[in-house]
Amino acid sequence: MLEIVAAIDIGGTNTEIGLVDRAGACLCRSALVTTDFADPQEFVVAAHQLISQLVETASAQVALCGIGIGAPNGNFYHGSIEFAPNLAWKGIVPLVDIFKRFYRVPVVLTNDANAAAIGEGMFGAARGCRHFIVITLGTGVGSGIVVNGELVYGHDGFAGEIGHTIVDPDGRQCNCGRRGCLETYASAGGIKRTVFELLAHSNSPSLLRSKSYEELTARDIADAASEGDAIACEAFEITGRILGLKLADAIAHTSPEAIILYGGLAQAGELIFEPTRRHMENFTLNIFKNKVRLLPSALPQGLAAILGAAALVWNELEKAV
Amino acid sequence: MLEIVAAIDIGGTNTEIGLVDRAGACLCRSALVTTDFADPQEFVVAAHQLISQLVETASAQVALCGIGIGAPNGNFYHGSIEFAPNLAWKGIVPLVDIFKRFYRVPVVLTNDANAAAIGEGMFGAARGCRHFIVITLGTGVGSGIVVNGELVYGHDGFAGEIGHTIVDPDGRQCNCGRRGCLETYASAGGIKRTVFELLAHSNSPSLLRSKSYEELTARDIADAASEGDAIACEAFEITGRILGLKLADAIAHTSPEAIILYGGLAQAGELIFEPTRRHMENFTLNIFKNKVRLLPSALPQGLAAILGAAALVWNELEKAV
Repeated sequence: MLEIVAAIDIGGTNTEIGLVDRAGACLCRSALVTTDFADPQEFVVAAHQLISQLVETASAQVALCGIGIGAPNGNFYHGSIEFAPNLAWKGIVPLVDIFKRFYRVPVVLTNDANAAAIGEGMFGAARGCRHFIVITLGTGVGSGIVVNGELVYGHDGFAGEIGHTIVDPDGRQCNCGRRGCLETYASAGGIKRTVFELLAHSNSPSLLRSKSYEELTARDIADAASEGDAIACEAFEITGRILGLKLADAIAHTSPEAIILYGGLAQAGELIFEPTRRHMENFTLNIFKNKVRLLPSALPQGLAAILGAAALVWNELEKAV
Repeated sequence: MLEIVAAIDIGGTNTEIGLVDRAGACLCRSALVTTDFADPQEFVVAAHQLISQLVETASAQVALCGIGIGAPNGNFYHGSIEFAPNLAWKGIVPLVDIFKRFYRVPVVLTNDANAAAIGEGMFGAARGCRHFIVITLGTGVGSGIVVNGELVYGHDGFAGEIGHTIVDPDGRQCNCGRRGCLETYASAGGIKRTVFELLAHSNSPSLLRSKSYEELTARDIADAASEGDAIACEAFEITGRILGLKLADAIAHTSPEAIILYGGLAQAGELIFEPTRRHMENFTLNIFKNKVRLLPSALPQGLAAILGAAALVWNELEKAV
């Protein structure tokens, strides 16, 4: 019998579910449409059915050891999703309790960026590191901070919100209700806002002048920068400067040996890594200079969130031994 | 036999040495003039003699269990003082190794702000807290971050430099060689710089117009604010806003249940606590609002650093059990 966990990555649109072994191999996976379920109870019934199907059809005989869930606004201590702006389930959803009606194995939940951090530590770019930070540069900017090999949850389970540290208290409006959060600059939407400011400010010709705000994507900006588009290149430079500045602040807090960038905007590769690394080093206090590696995720594209959710529960199972 | 530790608080001018029991009572203490010793070896010889005298003259029969040292730029991992700008001992000073030539009990060293954090956790305002931050607002701004009951040292022993997070990358010149660090705004010197900017900017009469830059102290500014001096009051408001902003960032990293302010500027009491608390709450992400207590130190004035250094070694001795 091969020991496996069911890993569940809940996104605003889709939920991915996979069976993952202790070494981080995903045996099989499938998906649900999150938005099909107005009620979280119905969602769990459907997830339970899907996991049973995966277990039955897996290529090996498997023993289910636990369930790991990564979700937006997931709280590890409470086992709940709390006030997630991008989900239809409002208020506090005690998802772990609902799952436990169907399972006697451990069920663990955390937010998606924390799951990514545990995944990178167990299977990815931070393997062997005891002090590191994972930053997800996607629709928003999430983070998971690891100190002494343990994820930092803080006293309420919500620690690691580097995306909501403040770059400029009079700056851009953020979905969190405040202004000038890192997320409004260093996310996929943030670099788009920077491009629109630059298009307004300068007269330079740009490939990006033909796209509406709704049309323009971070991928378009990366493609334009690869072709040498001055506006797109400057947008990456500005984004890297702001991200580098706030990463230098993060280094001053927990002094990690590595920071891993992950998610849509990180896929722009050196376009975002080079300016971020340069400015991070420039803004970093002397004693930390040239010590912190800025790395891309080493989790396979498309599987990262599932491996993160799997690592979360393997991690807890190991602690329980 | 009463079990005690020798606690050593090394400052730029004076070094305080005390014998402290497990409950945090200081039996007796004495001092050395740090600047009398150009050579750290000679300093340790003198400290050893002083500790022997304290042990002999103590009111009870005592057993020395360990030595705890708090020092500027102290590194816990290396047991050394590294590149301390305010000490005559240059480069890397392996102070723990030098002490170990005289003692067979454990010798532990960390930086002064970390020692203060351990002291507050063991004997002071953070007793019973597992997640808290201590900020020292003195000549500089230091910090010690505690996560899950453990001080965060980071991968190199230098974690917890919140005083060198950046408020404004084009801002005031900092002793660290960079610009706009929190320390240049929220230290005793920082509020003086703010007063001088305000004196230049406004025509308001002020008690502070009669003092030179060299003469003016944080205490003068607090005294003037207590008498309703508009410039002094505005300086505290501005300092509290900047400190509150960066504390909100710190909360987003490790989600502490309490932040403790300590050191010269914190002695201004509500003059600094009220605006800092108000702006911290305003700048804090919704999920953290009204959760984090901003507290004054509860270590006895004048004894705080010694109790911190004592707590450091008691803490290590407890872990070793």
